[in-house]
Amino acid sequence: MPTLSDIQAQIRAFRDARDWLQFHNPKNLAISISLEASELLEHFQWRSFEESQAHAREAREAIADEMADIAIYLAEFADLLDIDLLAAMESKLAKNAAKYPVEKARGSHKKYTDLE
Amino acid sequence: MPTLSDIQAQIRAFRDARDWLQFHNPKNLAISISLEASELLEHFQWRSFEESQAHAREAREAIADEMADIAIYLAEFADLLDIDLLAAMESKLAKNAAKYPVEKARGSHKKYTDLE
Amino acid sequence: MPTLSDIQAQIRAFRDARDWLQFHNPKNLAISISLEASELLEHFQWRSFEESQAHAREAREAIADEMADIAIYLAEFADLLDIDLLAAMESKLAKNAAKYPVEKARGSHKKYTDLE
Amino acid sequence: MPTLSDIQAQIRAFRDARDWLQFHNPKNLAISISLEASELLEHFQWRSFEESQAHAREAREAIADEMADIAIYLAEFADLLDIDLLAAMESKLAKNAAKYPVEKARGSHKKYTDLE
Repeated sequence: MPTLSDIQAQIRAFRDARDWLQFHNPKNLAISISLEASELLEHFQWRSFEESQAHAREAREAIADEMADIAIYLAEFADLLDIDLLAAMESKLAKNAAKYPVEKARGSHKKYTDLE
Repeated sequence: MPTLSDIQAQIRAFRDARDWLQFHNPKNLAISISLEASELLEHFQWRSFEESQAHAREAREAIADEMADIAIYLAEFADLLDIDLLAAMESKLAKNAAKYPVEKARGSHKKYTDLE
Repeated sequence: MPTLSDIQAQIRAFRDARDWLQFHNPKNLAISISLEASELLEHFQWRSFEESQAHAREAREAIADEMADIAIYLAEFADLLDIDLLAAMESKLAKNAAKYPVEKARGSHKKYTDLE
Repeated sequence: MPTLSDIQAQIRAFRDARDWLQFHNPKNLAISISLEASELLEHFQWRSFEESQAHAREAREAIADEMADIAIYLAEFADLLDIDLLAAMESKLAKNAAKYPVEKARGSHKKYTDLE
């Protein structure tokens, strides 16, 4: 089973074989993540929550591909900036836990700045 | 060192302790990934490519946090749909390699539908 | 009552008084429209459809400001490219009418490529 | 020459002939504006600023169509919430003028919170 680091090495090799580092700079990678996120969102544009659940099951492979597109650019970007993405996720989860204490946030979708 | 699966278990525990599964459905998770991608992109909104490179170094921790926000929702979404995100990335890289053959795509940023 | 052209003249004057044309190029304006669109969408991130309707009424002024942010960049961008935005809207509505014939599209949220 | 109000009446008629108000609620319209903004941005994804300028001229009609897609949903959304979009733009420009005084903002792309 590949690790995230293994896949980042594959992405780097893919990019460099095509001489694409010249295009894959921070600004363009950030744009690309946003565009791929929109392609994922487009699946749910007009669907109700129930229809979205059903569609997520039915179009599972197409949705996995859209997720992968986002993840590939994100992994490449983290690699480019020498950021350990898994460590960054753990660190952010700890910050989120402090911003959203269980007793205040339970059952609420308020932003932490609006929690009482 | 945590694996992606370890972190997905942490995210699940974080979400369930707050009873947030009711909000974290496919449609809302897709929206959230897109919103977090915009927060990353905002760092580069008005900057030139050179300024963006410099900023990525200077604001490295803030940028790692934005990347983590995207990655956390993406990992949660994949987990919710029982999609193996790393396997999906490998599979998508193989598809991309077929769409962008090295000899045609080298040094070009054309979409595969426009490659000759 | 101001027309869209009047407001575009105001936007141009605002921009030029600050010497911002150097930043407001096509790429950066397209990014900015997308970022402002996310700020509008953030209002509805976790809300149900019913909550979104209620929120749209309660946060009417904040939402009008977010809409205005999108519209200002869009109007500036059209002005920069010498595109008549109102004429472009009319022309696009005619194309949409051809893609979505009433008898096929009524009551359906399918994409025109999937209509039968 | 049509006014924005004229076009909003056309959009309303287009929507209602297809019985689409059931899908065109605030949450879905905000998603749709964001998705259309991404289609505009996609034109500039990998292009340099210079290439983007050239492309904006060459692909003028396609870009006008993308702008129109954003503007159509935005005009429909404003109409749905009974917001006067042109008045909202003027009001927001006045707020922006206060946030970005000429003497401080000239030649700078800093956010107003970072201006000195």
